[in-house]
Amino acid sequence: MAYIGNYIRKLDALNISGLYGSDFFLTWEKTFDEIMAFYTVADALRSLREDNVSTKIFDSGLGISLFRDNSTRTRFSFGSACNLLGLEVQDLDEGKSQIAHGETVRETANMVSFMADVIGIRDDMYIGKGNAYMREVAKAVREGFLDGNLEQCPTLVNLQCDIDHPTQAMADMNHIIRHFGGIENLKGKKIAMTWAYSPSYGKPLSVPQGVIGLMTRFGMEVSLAHPEGYEVMPEVIEVAKRNAAASGGVFTQSNSMEEAFKNADIVYPKSWAPFKAMEKRTNLYGAGDMDGIKALEKELLAQNANHKKWECTENLMKTTREGKALYLHCLPADITGVSCKEGEVAASVFDRYRVPLYKEASHKPYIIAAMIFLSKVKHPQKTLAELASRGKPRFFG
Amino acid sequence: MAYIGNYIRKLDALNISGLYGSDFFLTWEKTFDEIMAFYTVADALRSLREDNVSTKIFDSGLGISLFRDNSTRTRFSFGSACNLLGLEVQDLDEGKSQIAHGETVRETANMVSFMADVIGIRDDMYIGKGNAYMREVAKAVREGFLDGNLEQCPTLVNLQCDIDHPTQAMADMNHIIRHFGGIENLKGKKIAMTWAYSPSYGKPLSVPQGVIGLMTRFGMEVSLAHPEGYEVMPEVIEVAKRNAAASGGVFTQSNSMEEAFKNADIVYPKSWAPFKAMEKRTNLYGAGDMDGIKALEKELLAQNANHKKWECTENLMKTTREGKALYLHCLPADITGVSCKEGEVAASVFDRYRVPLYKEASHKPYIIAAMIFLSKVKHPQKTLAELASRGKPRFFG
Amino acid sequence: MAYIGNYIRKLDALNISGLYGSDFFLTWEKTFDEIMAFYTVADALRSLREDNVSTKIFDSGLGISLFRDNSTRTRFSFGSACNLLGLEVQDLDEGKSQIAHGETVRETANMVSFMADVIGIRDDMYIGKGNAYMREVAKAVREGFLDGNLEQCPTLVNLQCDIDHPTQAMADMNHIIRHFGGIENLKGKKIAMTWAYSPSYGKPLSVPQGVIGLMTRFGMEVSLAHPEGYEVMPEVIEVAKRNAAASGGVFTQSNSMEEAFKNADIVYPKSWAPFKAMEKRTNLYGAGDMDGIKALEKELLAQNANHKKWECTENLMKTTREGKALYLHCLPADITGVSCKEGEVAASVFDRYRVPLYKEASHKPYIIAAMIFLSKVKHPQKTLAELASRGKPRFFG
Repeated sequence: MAYIGNYIRKLDALNISGLYGSDFFLTWEKTFDEIMAFYTVADALRSLREDNVSTKIFDSGLGISLFRDNSTRTRFSFGSACNLLGLEVQDLDEGKSQIAHGETVRETANMVSFMADVIGIRDDMYIGKGNAYMREVAKAVREGFLDGNLEQCPTLVNLQCDIDHPTQAMADMNHIIRHFGGIENLKGKKIAMTWAYSPSYGKPLSVPQGVIGLMTRFGMEVSLAHPEGYEVMPEVIEVAKRNAAASGGVFTQSNSMEEAFKNADIVYPKSWAPFKAMEKRTNLYGAGDMDGIKALEKELLAQNANHKKWECTENLMKTTREGKALYLHCLPADITGVSCKEGEVAASVFDRYRVPLYKEASHKPYIIAAMIFLSKVKHPQKTLAELASRGKPRFFG
Repeated sequence: MAYIGNYIRKLDALNISGLYGSDFFLTWEKTFDEIMAFYTVADALRSLREDNVSTKIFDSGLGISLFRDNSTRTRFSFGSACNLLGLEVQDLDEGKSQIAHGETVRETANMVSFMADVIGIRDDMYIGKGNAYMREVAKAVREGFLDGNLEQCPTLVNLQCDIDHPTQAMADMNHIIRHFGGIENLKGKKIAMTWAYSPSYGKPLSVPQGVIGLMTRFGMEVSLAHPEGYEVMPEVIEVAKRNAAASGGVFTQSNSMEEAFKNADIVYPKSWAPFKAMEKRTNLYGAGDMDGIKALEKELLAQNANHKKWECTENLMKTTREGKALYLHCLPADITGVSCKEGEVAASVFDRYRVPLYKEASHKPYIIAAMIFLSKVKHPQKTLAELASRGKPRFFG
Repeated sequence: MAYIGNYIRKLDALNISGLYGSDFFLTWEKTFDEIMAFYTVADALRSLREDNVSTKIFDSGLGISLFRDNSTRTRFSFGSACNLLGLEVQDLDEGKSQIAHGETVRETANMVSFMADVIGIRDDMYIGKGNAYMREVAKAVREGFLDGNLEQCPTLVNLQCDIDHPTQAMADMNHIIRHFGGIENLKGKKIAMTWAYSPSYGKPLSVPQGVIGLMTRFGMEVSLAHPEGYEVMPEVIEVAKRNAAASGGVFTQSNSMEEAFKNADIVYPKSWAPFKAMEKRTNLYGAGDMDGIKALEKELLAQNANHKKWECTENLMKTTREGKALYLHCLPADITGVSCKEGEVAASVFDRYRVPLYKEASHKPYIIAAMIFLSKVKHPQKTLAELASRGKPRFFG
């Protein structure tokens, strides 16, 4: 397992002293060295597992998951990451709990955490709420730990909020790094993060926001394109601008899918809802105005329908670098003629990229595991070396 | 643990090279040697556990379960089998997932399987659908493995489909083998697989089909009996005929419960729905014809009510071999005067067989564990020997 | 880990030979020595975990949970306790099972228990039902074990019934013991277990009953107070009287919150439903009389509203011993102005006790683990010594 030495040397070169005991809310709160450490540990854990070496650093302990929206891949990624490290998942199903009985966030957070090493939360439906909720939970358990109620302080991992979808964007980015053979090859590469038509509405903004918030840090040209009216959060636009300036990259915005795709090395066409509409919806829900919500839905679907040309077609793909940009999607995609009549992407394009798409998704469990590992483990290099030298088989037989 | 040597010698005598990496869809796709290997490994794992020896061959890893119908015993049997081998169960609850968002089977199968070593599926409601769905999942994850998206190829275990209920029939058969002291004592024994009245309708055909598809392989006389109109799938009838011919046994069909019970060594009276009605129901569901479904339900209940005499009574039991045939049921049974007014079996008969019935059910976790074990482990004899010599206690204290 | 020696010596001084293989239904069925053994083992397991020593006594095995009422903290406490000892939780979700299909308790209990080491049940809704149900389950699995269907006999742990809430009362009591520095300091201390106003109705009686049934055993003065008409079960009153007499303590009853609080060292103000009303409700449910239930709800809410003065205010707290009684609650509490307009406790009182309240709750996982441990482990002192000397890290890294 000489390869472990390579990962360890990579970590040696990074300043990651701030990660121990930290939570993961937004990628842009992490330094570039820290971001690179997550990739390094994710790859190291993956290599060990591929080599049938157990990476269980916990003998017992719980990973608490709280999904306030349906989820398949993030749910299973979180479950896989916990299992890989030795934690058992306990789902906090709000329907089965007493949370409705007027219990505070602070109380629930403490009550489920007596033996919790990590808490993963998806809360992406309402603008201004999800990320704030996660911080409230993280603050509560930190206090609980300091007060001596909790024997360990659970790490908070953002499994998608109203602002960012860090486990997704980080997995996407690791896919890009591997595809292009290292971050040293990314300088000047162009990625098109574009809106695309979908017959559904209200898809979260956290994917495009997560992408422009992270991928502007690698010296790439990041082109955000969407129809007028589909703006994302202004704060994240500012983050992307700052990142691009700092990394020697470029961040552009336009209302043209064609412009974004032109000579792109990577394309990420995906539907999302207008930020302002989501803000309005949040307020309507807050006011319990169900008629208003229905009217808004109708309005948004009609607005979407004006932009059916925003589809990732074969013709558009031909305009990318040598006609073979890397196509990304967080899945599930709305595939024209397959999952809907008219959608985000042509069936033939999607089909050609199926294998890379699944590979893209395969990074998520390891990214989440790396987030837990680097928050929990005080001396990551030492622990990786010990896991390798311990050499306990993952599968015995 | 000298007994482990006996199991290993039994396996040495069998040709089981085809099991490594294989899925389990239908018992009749397995050779007789392979079937015997499942019993041998199931018994070996059970002996080790009874001897407080850990049989965990996985240090981490997931067992994915997907139940498209309610389940108690199969759900807990799958969970027990996974736990016994060291896998953590993750339930793919379709209600909590994004599957409804138009995602393909291929995609979901890959997305949940990045760290899955086994996938267990129950999908028994619609004729022509369940087994086909399982094969689609198995094909998808095999491709995902070959494409390098999945680091391991999960084994597919059929936890009940429209055609077969292999974990049930295999557990039932192991109960029979143990009861009669070995397969060498089964030649010429008579088993009556008969329909029985139930006030509910639409019970799956997979139990009688599984029984006649498996038990005809042991040289027994298998008598299938049901009222006219309650035919099972013609393909499975053909399987039963071929099996009986090949094993030197007999397969008979009749419309008389009395004839089937006469001199039977084993009786398995159980309600099921007519194959043609289930096919019709599948089409009605496909067409979304809810009125048609309601009408069909009414018709089927009325049809059932014509056959209330199909009950396993004390008088019928007296006509079996020496009046003491082994009574089998997959549970739960419709017990006359207990769980319903008129049902499949008299309360006194059921009560007399309660202990053997629970023993029958107790084999299922081990059968499922054996299915996983023989698909995953390359050299089963060597691994069994190692588990025994490792001698790690299952319970320490 | 010299401290383990202290716990072992404490156990040496107790007669606990009756605990091996026993279930936990009601605290008053346990001897005082046995009760002290649960605290000793709970504290020992907690010390080991705090010292990063693994307390897994199971290499595999299942803990079955059955919650017939919503639950957050008891659910997570049970899950934490199982995880701490090495058991995987499998939830018996009656909605997903076939239990509705007329299956008997005896059958279900056996069917889920083939690899179960413990069964935890919450069933607190109907008077005369919950505890009886638990005993039926325990009897069924004991028979299943004796019949050879189950390889091990699962321990039954009462996670709240109609009579007692032993894991709650035991955790509360351990909090008291630690707060006052040992049971030797409890003699003569006064605890007020009082009703308090809540805008909801029908809260279980098991908390006050559990408290008076347990805390009367320590030579304390236990004062039960509630408005007229809010009587608890007469049987438990008898238990409390007997306990107080035997322990040299006092048990008083009154209709005055003021009287109970006066000079109290500990206060436990909490809403509950009148026993007779709950009995009536049970009968109405039994008869399917939904109109009767609605009428009863209305009547009970109106009755509650007559007693809004039963609130734990700052003024009342001032009347306790030196104005600083230890405030207890099982949580979640109805906090005036926070979770409801008028409730059980003033916000400022609750807030001042938040840290101790969470500490109180933190004992529950360890209490449950101790219940499992002492039922499963034949020689508790030896096993604790071995866990300490084995010194396997809980977290490796």
